Amino acid sequence: MVSAVVLLKTHRGLINEVAAQLAELNGISEVFSVGGRYDLVAILRVRDNEAMADLVTEHMLKVDGIAESETLLAFRAFSRHDLESMFSLGLDE
Amino acid sequence: MVSAVVLLKTHRGLINEVAAQLAELNGISEVFSVGGRYDLVAILRVRDNEAMADLVTEHMLKVDGIAESETLLAFRAFSRHDLESMFSLGLDE
Amino acid sequence: MVSAVVLLKTHRGLINEVAAQLAELNGISEVFSVGGRYDLVAILRVRDNEAMADLVTEHMLKVDGIAESETLLAFRAFSRHDLESMFSLGLDE
Amino acid sequence: MVSAVVLLKTHRGLINEVAAQLAELNGISEVFSVGGRYDLVAILRVRDNEAMADLVTEHMLKVDGIAESETLLAFRAFSRHDLESMFSLGLDE
Amino acid sequence: MVSAVVLLKTHRGLINEVAAQLAELNGISEVFSVGGRYDLVAILRVRDNEAMADLVTEHMLKVDGIAESETLLAFRAFSRHDLESMFSLGLDE
Amino acid sequence: MVSAVVLLKTHRGLINEVAAQLAELNGISEVFSVGGRYDLVAILRVRDNEAMADLVTEHMLKVDGIAESETLLAFRAFSRHDLESMFSLGLDE
Amino acid sequence: MVSAVVLLKTHRGLINEVAAQLAELNGISEVFSVGGRYDLVAILRVRDNEAMADLVTEHMLKVDGIAESETLLAFRAFSRHDLESMFSLGLDE
Amino acid sequence: MVSAVVLLKTHRGLINEVAAQLAELNGISEVFSVGGRYDLVAILRVRDNEAMADLVTEHMLKVDGIAESETLLAFRAFSRHDLESMFSLGLDE
Amino acid sequence: MVSAVVLLKTHRGLINEVAAQLAELNGISEVFSVGGRYDLVAILRVRDNEAMADLVTEHMLKVDGIAESETLLAFRAFSRHDLESMFSLGLDE
Amino acid sequence: MVSAVVLLKTHRGLINEVAAQLAELNGISEVFSVGGRYDLVAILRVRDNEAMADLVTEHMLKVDGIAESETLLAFRAFSRHDLESMFSLGLDE
Repeated sequence: MVSAVVLLKTHRGLINEVAAQLAELNGISEVFSVGGRYDLVAILRVRDNEAMADLVTEHMLKVDGIAESETLLAFRAFSRHDLESMFSLGLDE
Repeated sequence: MVSAVVLLKTHRGLINEVAAQLAELNGISEVFSVGGRYDLVAILRVRDNEAMADLVTEHMLKVDGIAESETLLAFRAFSRHDLESMFSLGLDE
Repeated sequence: MVSAVVLLKTHRGLINEVAAQLAELNGISEVFSVGGRYDLVAILRVRDNEAMADLVTEHMLKVDGIAESETLLAFRAFSRHDLESMFSLGLDE
Repeated sequence: MVSAVVLLKTHRGLINEVAAQLAELNGISEVFSVGGRYDLVAILRVRDNEAMADLVTEHMLKVDGIAESETLLAFRAFSRHDLESMFSLGLDE
Repeated sequence: MVSAVVLLKTHRGLINEVAAQLAELNGISEVFSVGGRYDLVAILRVRDNEAMADLVTEHMLKVDGIAESETLLAFRAFSRHDLESMFSLGLDE
Repeated sequence: MVSAVVLLKTHRGLINEVAAQLAELNGISEVFSVGGRYDLVAILRVRDNEAMADLVTEHMLKVDGIAESETLLAFRAFSRHDLESMFSLGLDE
Repeated sequence: MVSAVVLLKTHRGLINEVAAQLAELNGISEVFSVGGRYDLVAILRVRDNEAMADLVTEHMLKVDGIAESETLLAFRAFSRHDLESMFSLGLDE
Repeated sequence: MVSAVVLLKTHRGLINEVAAQLAELNGISEVFSVGGRYDLVAILRVRDNEAMADLVTEHMLKVDGIAESETLLAFRAFSRHDLESMFSLGLDE
Repeated sequence: MVSAVVLLKTHRGLINEVAAQLAELNGISEVFSVGGRYDLVAILRVRDNEAMADLVTEHMLKVDGIAESETLLAFRAFSRHDLESMFSLGLDE
Repeated sequence: MVSAVVLLKTHRGLINEVAAQLAELNGISEVFSVGGRYDLVAILRVRDNEAMADLVTEHMLKVDGIAESETLLAFRAFSRHDLESMFSLGLDE
């Protein structure tokens, strides 16, 4: 499984509308509206790099109201609990 | 429950060491090493704003090897599945 | 109670008009026109994170004439006088 | 009365220590630890520009642990309630 | 008396036109066209903060052709000659 | 006569000390401590480009406590009053 | 042979379309869609500086959908294998 | 196979030394010294995300003389020639 | 004689057209199309500051297709050969 | 012949010293001390890309007192006079 964290700015006044649309997409596990330089942060988890490319370029960035985005692709995930790490986070397999 | 996404840069060559220490802290649910302008992204989930202030200022930022950090506090979380949203992600009770 | 400091830029020539509209909103306790990189700073104080999310995304950012905004959510407030701190600033309760 | 909003970064791990020292200074009415690109925001209210110059250059910036600061001097304050505006916020008299 | 230094960018090809209009405004003592990241620098000197707020927000920023501005409000002025300092520069009175 | 506006940052806590030293230099007509991204602004007026090069590189930038500087050389000065423009501001003669 | 690495941003939603057009151009050996601040990275290899100037200014930057580009011209290429270095990378000849 | 493009700055005067060390690492197929904001660009090609994480965090960033780096992980590669795409660039397999 | 180096960005696809127009202007001795953050660099050499102001604001910045410019005015020129320095470069006279 | 324009910052107070050393190097035809964000601009003209790589990485960047540099490699030079263009500026051959 591969993960990415996406930092997004929306056109003014559309934060909740964009967030709701993103949260509907397969592969986006959570969307947060946040303080600071960005409006939204989305957490993406998909099967492999090819599925990530499809999700980002063909679905996520086609949502109306997005002004800017920066996708932070994860190399590797670290987690406190062995059990969690065994089932839910790896970049592998 | 309140959430935050923290963008971190580490001193050179210490990415894995810092990630491993962060993943040990209570309240940090995941840490990713990522491509792009940052080295690590940590996802924090704690009971309330006071606990977030403690986690960030008293524990997370005291980990050695962190060079820069930017904490994106979440106002609100959006999720696809009602069940998930009911139990695990809101900012409120 | 939760607080936030919002840094704003307005479209040119609309500083006073935007400031006057912001000062009318419930939850915005003060608005300053300022020198430097920003045009206005607003101080927000509301009951909880959910009310902050509503104020920022549904009311503040819908005011016409705002070009850019950056919301600095407060974790915690510090104050000199115990009496003040008891009644007016905490993040808790 | 004149006001200023000061955006501060501290050396790592010193956020609470710096905030506590700032909150002790005459003329600093509130200090917030915040998410985003800055660590702290301080609200300053003093009698006139000369007192502001003294507070910023002779007291505030001499607190140990401050790494960077940006002082946003207020031209003017806007407030919802006439009564408030009469007593507590103006830049004048 | 209060002073400010304003850094301005104009729309392309309008540097001299904007400079000439700014130089006509009461309270703007000099305007320079400059090399570097900005196109113009204006020096403002007015009676008090309230007059500065009026000059900047109601007159200066309403001049057509200004694309961006950053107002550096002076806390205090320093001068070599006592005589000059006595008559022409203070923030006081 | 040629003019320049210099934007300066000082090492922390040294704003007034640096300003006082700069104000002593021949060719620096005024120094302001300012709010915003810079700490000081100096206004330089000298006979010709060669004198400006000497003032900036041999005297001004050798003052201790300066951390960063950006010199905005003026092409031309604009002024409201003919008399002023005749005697005090031109780039020529 | 001379090489260049070009960092590109596209208009939103056009990443794959721009990449496909770039990959068709003579002299562009590879195009990657990437995470981070840029959308695409193209690797250019042509005979000499004159051919590079033509490729960049007359062909690559005329592809529709490109919003920003930054061309990093290579001085020199370094490679592990002598054989590779002999045939495929030099700036020479 | 997964690819990444890494933008690097070195400590002054060490460009060639760092480039030579990087070019020795398994998984780095080419290193260019370039004009512009960066000193070097490295092209990485490895078997999977886990190997990329090892190469970047355990080998590449441990080379002495690197001052800053930004890793652009590729989602997908586009190429003109089928044959090339079959053997050398895909994200797949 | 006074010199300036001007860094320019053009609207996309117009690099050669803008360069050709700039190269026609009196006082612009050379124009380079360059890699990196800028598209073009122009070298200006004119008789005095007044002529520089005219060239930059009345001629150079009126060329169509220029999106951004930053003019670096030279204080002084340094050259290897005495003879050259005597005739061709100074800010002197 | 290939050309480059190099933007340099020096350590404080060393502008003239660095400029004098750079002007001594073979291949650097002129050095200017400039106003704005940079301290010096150097113009480089050498026989080919390989000579440029040597000049920049082995000689120019080894001069003491340089804090930052950005090398803008020229693709092509444009000049008003045919004669000049024939002999002195091209990227020719």
